[in-house]
Amino acid sequence: MSAGNQQERLDASWIVGFTDGEGCFHISINKLPGMSLGWQVLPEFRIVQNERDESVLYGIKDYFGFGDVTINRRDSNGTRKEFRVRGLENLNKIIEFFNKNKLNTLKRKDFEIFSEVINLMNNKQHLTKEGLDNIAKLISKMNRQPKLKYLESSETIRLK
Amino acid sequence: MSAGNQQERLDASWIVGFTDGEGCFHISINKLPGMSLGWQVLPEFRIVQNERDESVLYGIKDYFGFGDVTINRRDSNGTRKEFRVRGLENLNKIIEFFNKNKLNTLKRKDFEIFSEVINLMNNKQHLTKEGLDNIAKLISKMNRQPKLKYLESSETIRLK
Repeated sequence: MSAGNQQERLDASWIVGFTDGEGCFHISINKLPGMSLGWQVLPEFRIVQNERDESVLYGIKDYFGFGDVTINRRDSNGTRKEFRVRGLENLNKIIEFFNKNKLNTLKRKDFEIFSEVINLMNNKQHLTKEGLDNIAKLISKMNRQPKLKYLESSETIRLK
Repeated sequence: MSAGNQQERLDASWIVGFTDGEGCFHISINKLPGMSLGWQVLPEFRIVQNERDESVLYGIKDYFGFGDVTINRRDSNGTRKEFRVRGLENLNKIIEFFNKNKLNTLKRKDFEIFSEVINLMNNKQHLTKEGLDNIAKLISKMNRQPKLKYLESSETIRLK
């Protein structure tokens, strides 16, 4: 068997199924003094696998024609790698892909919120205080919501 | 959004992708005094999800036309459900499906071992001591190998 040589078999439906299982639409807001508001919004699309299965991550990268395969985490369970897409240009292509090829799990809800945030960023809203607050509120509605230091530090946002 | 109503979208490639992510080919050998050798071989194909996503498990069940959706585990993280296929007749159909629609991760290796075991069982080999030993040896080569009490209790098997 040589699963590592099967990248040519990947198709859109397989990628959607694998993303429904293993994918993650993640947005963090990081303190970055150089930014005008002092905060950077960092959206990412990720698929994480044990490094034994890194060949499938390269297969996904080949499918899209962009993104990176990089180390996600090293710990006692071994090394985990991730296929990762950053940057508005490529993330807009990811959104186009998943708008055309619908996710079937509740991960679709996270994708839809992710899309809203990317749209706000396309319109430079993340560079205004109001836009950043809106983005933080959207992130807090995600199923897998990261802990946002931005929310903790901001007294102006009421989530309820 | 209503991911719960999207079962009709599931297709073979999506199911392969979701299985590459979330599926499990599992074989246990259980002590069962009523069996001729005192041991029962129990192969299962499983896909486990948080119960919030149980609709996708029913979608998979609808796709195959057999299998059960049942509770996998309840704990402090909530309830997990599983789509589960047992029984040689339906497992042979699962094998036919994944022979036609190839897995792309190393899970394929587990599937191939699983297929070998099902073939041995099709030929009633699990009802002989030699066959049962062969099955135990095959299971021990699986990536996600369960702990086999049968191996611990048997002095006749040398795995190396």
